[in-house]
Amino acid sequence: MTGPAPTPEPPYWAVIFTARRTDQPDDSYEQTAERMFALAAKQPGCLGYDTAGSDELSITVSYWESEAAIAAWKADIEHLDAQRQGRERWYECFELRVARVERAYAFTRPAS
Amino acid sequence: MTGPAPTPEPPYWAVIFTARRTDQPDDSYEQTAERMFALAAKQPGCLGYDTAGSDELSITVSYWESEAAIAAWKADIEHLDAQRQGRERWYECFELRVARVERAYAFTRPAS
Repeated sequence: MTGPAPTPEPPYWAVIFTARRTDQPDDSYEQTAERMFALAAKQPGCLGYDTAGSDELSITVSYWESEAAIAAWKADIEHLDAQRQGRERWYECFELRVARVERAYAFTRPAS
Repeated sequence: MTGPAPTPEPPYWAVIFTARRTDQPDDSYEQTAERMFALAAKQPGCLGYDTAGSDELSITVSYWESEAAIAAWKADIEHLDAQRQGRERWYECFELRVARVERAYAFTRPAS
């Protein structure tokens, strides 16, 4: 992962997922998270994602063409199982926000 | 910082800032970043923020009552100077997205 994710001209959609992990070590978390990133990236309408953080606080923002694409990903059967495990085992708390990106500005350092 | 930031019922606004640092070590970065977080939090209309990441990729999402509040923060004189230093010294690249949060869902683990 390098990031930031390249995205088209707005409007498009963002799902902002901020989460704090429980204190219980659990190897299955990392594995499942990687699997979910790969699976999401292949979903129709997914424009990319960025993720950063630690056990204390992680932020993942995924970008989508439409609300319908977000709804389809939310209902993916493997993703549903990961969501269940997240609530049961991995997360102390999280907040999920669905937002419509209205404007975007990109900066890339000029080659020197 | 614990996070996720508590926010009111949508709609409200999110500024999603994803950035990759240059390879040049620069102590002034951390200092300025902390100062900007503190300053932003005191801005009228700021609802909170979450930040996570490493030099490789950092994600900061700040939440705002209105687009006018975002515009006022963007134009803050001390913030303008930090923005200039960001482009000149600290960031290899970044992407700034302004989004309207339409829906939000919070989870907190039940006390066991």
